[in-house]
Parts: sequence; C-alpha cells; structure tokens
Amino acid sequence: MAQNIYDDPEFFAGYSRLPRQAHGLAGAPEWNTVRAMLPVLHGKRVADLGCGFGWASRWMRHNGAACVTGYDLSQNMIGRARALSRDGSIDYRIADLDTLELPPSSLDLIYSSLAFHYVKDFDRLTSMMHRALTSRGVLVFSIEHPIFMAGSKPDWIEDGKVRIWPVNQYSIEGERRTNWFVAGVLKYHRTIGTTLNTLIRTGFQIDRIEEFAPTKAQIDAHPGLAEELERPMMLLVAAHKSC
Amino acid sequence: MAQNIYDDPEFFAGYSRLPRQAHGLAGAPEWNTVRAMLPVLHGKRVADLGCGFGWASRWMRHNGAACVTGYDLSQNMIGRARALSRDGSIDYRIADLDTLELPPSSLDLIYSSLAFHYVKDFDRLTSMMHRALTSRGVLVFSIEHPIFMAGSKPDWIEDGKVRIWPVNQYSIEGERRTNWFVAGVLKYHRTIGTTLNTLIRTGFQIDRIEEFAPTKAQIDAHPGLAEELERPMMLLVAAHKSC
Repeated sequence: MAQNIYDDPEFFAGYSRLPRQAHGLAGAPEWNTVRAMLPVLHGKRVADLGCGFGWASRWMRHNGAACVTGYDLSQNMIGRARALSRDGSIDYRIADLDTLELPPSSLDLIYSSLAFHYVKDFDRLTSMMHRALTSRGVLVFSIEHPIFMAGSKPDWIEDGKVRIWPVNQYSIEGERRTNWFVAGVLKYHRTIGTTLNTLIRTGFQIDRIEEFAPTKAQIDAHPGLAEELERPMMLLVAAHKSC
Repeated sequence: MAQNIYDDPEFFAGYSRLPRQAHGLAGAPEWNTVRAMLPVLHGKRVADLGCGFGWASRWMRHNGAACVTGYDLSQNMIGRARALSRDGSIDYRIADLDTLELPPSSLDLIYSSLAFHYVKDFDRLTSMMHRALTSRGVLVFSIEHPIFMAGSKPDWIEDGKVRIWPVNQYSIEGERRTNWFVAGVLKYHRTIGTTLNTLIRTGFQIDRIEEFAPTKAQIDAHPGLAEELERPMMLLVAAHKSC
C-alpha cells in the first residue's frame, strides 16, 4: 500500500492549513490554468483521483458533470470531503492509486491534482486510466514538476540577490524523500520524457502541457508567488484517449 | 538576420574541435537516441535545418533518404559540409531559419539538431515546417533543454560532493546570452510547455520526448558524461503532422 501521510495527525494538521485546502480552488494558484485545460463538463462522468477535500470534485459537479467520484487514500481527506459536501451529490471513496481499478469505459474525464507523483507505478496507473476512459475520453492532471522534485536538496539557494533552484540527479528516477510537515514524505521522480512517453505509448494523445507560472496580478496579490517564475513547480498535462 | 556566430573565426576554430564536429555522429552522445526517433528513411525527402558540417544529412542520405537538403546560416559550415561530401548527392544551402521558407508539401521529414534554440520566432518556424511537410510528415529535432538554458548563470555549482545545476528565471522567456568559445552567444529560451504547445497548436502530434541521459557504457568510455545524469541538457522531440 502507498505511504499514507495524510492520516498522520501532524501532517494533516499542517496540510489542512494550506491555502489550497483552507480556501479551496481560490487558494490554488494554478487553478485558472487547470480550468482552461478541462473539457466541457456537461453530462460527463468524472473521476477525481487523489481528491483531497474534494474542492475540484464539487466544482466539476456544480459545473455540469453528470457524476463525479472522488478517490483518496486518506480517511481524513475523505471524511473532510464528505463533511464539506452539502448535497451528497458526490461519491467519495477511499482508494489507493497504486492498486485502484476502475470499470472499463466508464469515464469521460479523469482528473487529478498533485497526486500522481506519489504513485510508484505510473505505467500501471496510466494503463488502468486508459481502460477506464471511453473513446476520446480526457485525462487532465497536475504533478509536482520533475525539475522541482529531482534534486537531493530541493530548496532554494541564495546566490547574492538571485534565488537558485538546485537540480541534480534528474535522470535518476525513483524514490525521493522530503520533509513536508513531517519527515520522509515519499514521492517518485520520473522525468518529463518518461511521464509523457508513458502516456503516448499507452494510447493517449498529448493536447497541452503547462508549467504553472503566476500572473502579474497574482504576484501583486501574493508577492511570495514571484519565486514561481524562477523554477517550474508544477507540470500540468491534458491528453485524450486516441486509440 | 539571426546572429551568425559560426562565421566568427574564433568561434569556428573552437567549434570545429568539438567531438560532434571532429568525429561526426560518433561524437554526439545523443545520436543513438535521436536515431531511434527517426522514421524509416527509404525514399524520404528530407531537410536538415542547421546542418552544420552535414554529418546527419549524409547519414540520412546513405541510409535510404531519396534526397536530403542541408541548410545552415554559416558559410563556414556549408563550406565544410560540401568539402566532406564525397559524392555530391546532398544539396547544402545557406539559409537563415528565422526567414527560411520551404515549398509547401515538399518534405517527408524535417530534422534538426541543436539549432532551434537560436531561432527567435519558433511559432513562425513551426508553421513553416508544418506547411512544408506532406500529410503525416515527420519532424524530429533536438534543442538545448530549457532547464539547461533558462538560468542567468548556466554553470555547475559545487555543493560539497554534489554538483548542482542552477535554475532560475525559467518562466521568463526570451534572450539568453552565454559565453561559448566567444562572448555573448545569443539564444532564445522557451519553456517546455511553450515548445510543445506551439507544435500541438500548429497541428503536430507529439510522438516521443527524450531528455538525453548517457548510458553506463557511455560513461565508462567517457567519464565526463556522468554529469549529464544530473541535469537534462538536451530535449529531443519526435512529432508528425496530424492535421
């Protein structure tokens, strides 16, 4: 089973205070970019893999999706997602993305935000998603950018007035452990090439690649975001099932 | 007109001694990866954009291409390419990729090695290449990796025993000036997202993305290549005209 940091009380307490959890999509600076990558939702059957508190699940349901199922490994997450759903129109389920199987041809859209870098076997997950989508079904996901994740000390270096993001061991794929609220959070580094080629080889066609960068208005409102101009922090991918 | 460093005598003298020039394809560590991305060449009409000394042009011609035209901005390069062609079966022409126009639907394959990062307007170049290719025509190219190019001081930092590749200003696209044999060599940084989205938006379908990493055998033979495991130096793209 995948590491479940989210049910660690210390982690969960810290994580719950993140803007993107406390304030939902308005606290996720990449949301406008992600939203522009989503297809028309009307009538779509959607899965949200690694749904967390379910902010995006609810947004998609309320913006026309016929049904949305949110999956997350964490009981804490699913519990909070259910508590935040006023109308009970979304099905939230506990599931491990390392083993989850979804019914074949049952989905029009698979969405995932910042979850796949916790998945050990991206090849398995990609094949499963491909089977679960209908013909020309859409996959939209974000991950921590491989450049953000690759290094052995992923933290800023001050070089005079310049902030540097240190990259090393980029081509050496596999486990990365970082400290994030708790020590030793486990992630899996894959190169951009591996990520995209896995999708293409499985039968997805790449439609759009974004590397979130804040707008001037975002930086004016939240000056701390300026550092996200210096390094790519997130990789956003839109693709569809082409064969 | 694009900056023509290659006809600077000092630059050309240094450049000519690079393994990939002196030894041809055998001196280009990414060549095996590139070769695996090329389509079957038999009968194909090919353009090699930024052909340099013409090593790849000759390889493609001798491996089945019906005709190959090599284009380069530099008189020095084209002169050397012609001198190295024993049989005169390849047409080498002086051309600026910032303004080059190729006849519509005249090519089955466009190939380019480490040239497009000198091109100011990638959008124009991409549209021109799209027009010049036949239906389902193929584009295979390499560029300096955006992560290699982005930073204001693109050189290794030693951090104890670890070598760090410094990244900053990644999302700020545009001119980069570096010292490479001569001072102030002009390149144009574009993000991975911009590069791939320009291709997709123009009507190319992405078939494969590679970020060259040396094999163990290559590192054993050339220990200096080990550092290329730490950072992505080249981005290699295979795509085809899909609409």
